[in-house]
Amino acid sequence: MKILIDVLGADKGVGEIVKGAISALDKINYTPIFVGPEDEIKKYLPESIKGKYEIINANDLITNNDKPTTAIRRKKDSSMVMAFHALKDNKADGMISTGSTGALLAGASLIIGRIENVDRAAITLIFPGLESNTVILDVGANLDINPELLVQFAKMGSSYAKVLFDIDKPKVGLLNIGTEEAKGNEQVKAAYELLKNSDINFAGNVEPFNLLNNNVDVIVTDGFVGNIALKSVEGTSKIILNLFNEAVMTDMSSKIGGLLIKPALKKELSKLDLNSTGAAPLLGSKKPVFKAHGSSNAKQIEAGLVQMKKFIDQDVINDIKNLMGGK
Amino acid sequence: MKILIDVLGADKGVGEIVKGAISALDKINYTPIFVGPEDEIKKYLPESIKGKYEIINANDLITNNDKPTTAIRRKKDSSMVMAFHALKDNKADGMISTGSTGALLAGASLIIGRIENVDRAAITLIFPGLESNTVILDVGANLDINPELLVQFAKMGSSYAKVLFDIDKPKVGLLNIGTEEAKGNEQVKAAYELLKNSDINFAGNVEPFNLLNNNVDVIVTDGFVGNIALKSVEGTSKIILNLFNEAVMTDMSSKIGGLLIKPALKKELSKLDLNSTGAAPLLGSKKPVFKAHGSSNAKQIEAGLVQMKKFIDQDVINDIKNLMGGK
Repeated sequence: MKILIDVLGADKGVGEIVKGAISALDKINYTPIFVGPEDEIKKYLPESIKGKYEIINANDLITNNDKPTTAIRRKKDSSMVMAFHALKDNKADGMISTGSTGALLAGASLIIGRIENVDRAAITLIFPGLESNTVILDVGANLDINPELLVQFAKMGSSYAKVLFDIDKPKVGLLNIGTEEAKGNEQVKAAYELLKNSDINFAGNVEPFNLLNNNVDVIVTDGFVGNIALKSVEGTSKIILNLFNEAVMTDMSSKIGGLLIKPALKKELSKLDLNSTGAAPLLGSKKPVFKAHGSSNAKQIEAGLVQMKKFIDQDVINDIKNLMGGK
Repeated sequence: MKILIDVLGADKGVGEIVKGAISALDKINYTPIFVGPEDEIKKYLPESIKGKYEIINANDLITNNDKPTTAIRRKKDSSMVMAFHALKDNKADGMISTGSTGALLAGASLIIGRIENVDRAAITLIFPGLESNTVILDVGANLDINPELLVQFAKMGSSYAKVLFDIDKPKVGLLNIGTEEAKGNEQVKAAYELLKNSDINFAGNVEPFNLLNNNVDVIVTDGFVGNIALKSVEGTSKIILNLFNEAVMTDMSSKIGGLLIKPALKKELSKLDLNSTGAAPLLGSKKPVFKAHGSSNAKQIEAGLVQMKKFIDQDVINDIKNLMGGK
């Protein structure tokens, strides 16, 4: 199996991405195809892996400031566009990138294309949970949608959750402001009806209180609301942890207290690490395209690649095709 | 000044509400009119405040399970409906209730009526912040709205923030998934344009990351998104605090650490206490109607009454009338 690794666009630089891809070689059987500036990539490749990788030289970079569709159309020499074309031309089985989410979505749509009967590709996130993780989609790609699209998201999310969590019939929840059937705005109420009558294992509404502690495997929402919820959770966690650090600095006894409790607290908080899962697929794309966080470190890239391998091995995309009734 | 106090519907019972109203007598000059079962209310009234209160006997209760409009129309002997009618008949200057939010909204609309040119009343919340508090609306009343309504919310929120924070020109932010002007779904993009061209002191988009740490005085959003954000923040805080408590219980050294850091941590976290502000008005109602949290304790009821006094004294409603160009 070959996986294209777009090495440009990561906050921590090319070296970190290459390092992650190399350490994944110890975990999974695959050939990385690094896409980016050849000379720089080579600096990070040890002798020991000679012959175990390929490089596609690409010197241009799509940034978060570029307009996504324009960048995909014009920046032909960018690492992301070169990776997309290699994927399209069957030179690899999938690609992963830490680059601009908008550009990645545009490329998946314009160069790779969508699965039949999928109207829009969705950005997925694996939400960490106290008891178990949850696939949530969409978290930012589709801001104005219709209830039918939420059903498509539910189907695609189910396919993915089956493989990710090794379960048969993933439970799907609808993000809403209350658990009762009659709750919500017109869009979610209509989606509730459609989901209830679909062949999805629909478990009803999920309240944002329970984003981090729910009993479903998949949560569907529109990209606007999903992004608002995600950023509310992230912002709150960060602020509370800052308050904890402030509290530690208050006086001598709180400093000692902080030192004593830190190891246990770190362990508990690791349950909620939003980045622990490495990367997540753009669901709806005809071929595997994974988005890793811009701030990813080597460990997260490695985790992302391990996940991708499973996604490709178990042919999630074909499962989505079947569920969507396409070919 | 007379304030109607609906004593039914609170999680902590009638006694807690009465206690809060009595302790407010030491802070503000007002006459409480307790609305609820007279015999029970009297149990909690000390000799010392004889002559300083009134009672309207009401024995029925509107619950969260009642359909709001139906309950307001049919439960004529409920404490909430009786309070609404007393308010309408000018027997008091305002009312406060811990009861069903939906019923309170329905009553404000059906019995009291809305300010001219206000299409829908909004539920307000005072969001605690690290640096300063923020008025956020709507947090759950209006789930399907249009951009024009967000401008009405901005005007009403500004009127309230002026009095609440003692400032001249409150800064208004729009809850959105990014700070750039072009971000968001169609609704918020249209609202951005309208707000930019209005006479509101518009400060642009506010991301959910910054709900608890922003530099605006008012945040406007539709009731669905506002409720999702609010509950995401609440749920995350609660889960992280639970993890902290779990961490404390890990071993002897973390237990000691927990004891040592607790006082400082409690102080830091009090900055984010969502209930510290007591109660918030339904903006758009022709007369002052305040909603207190169902779980309110006496201290919160007291804080809510102190706030109401200011709201009534400074005639926020008249200010909203002027801003809305009504009469």
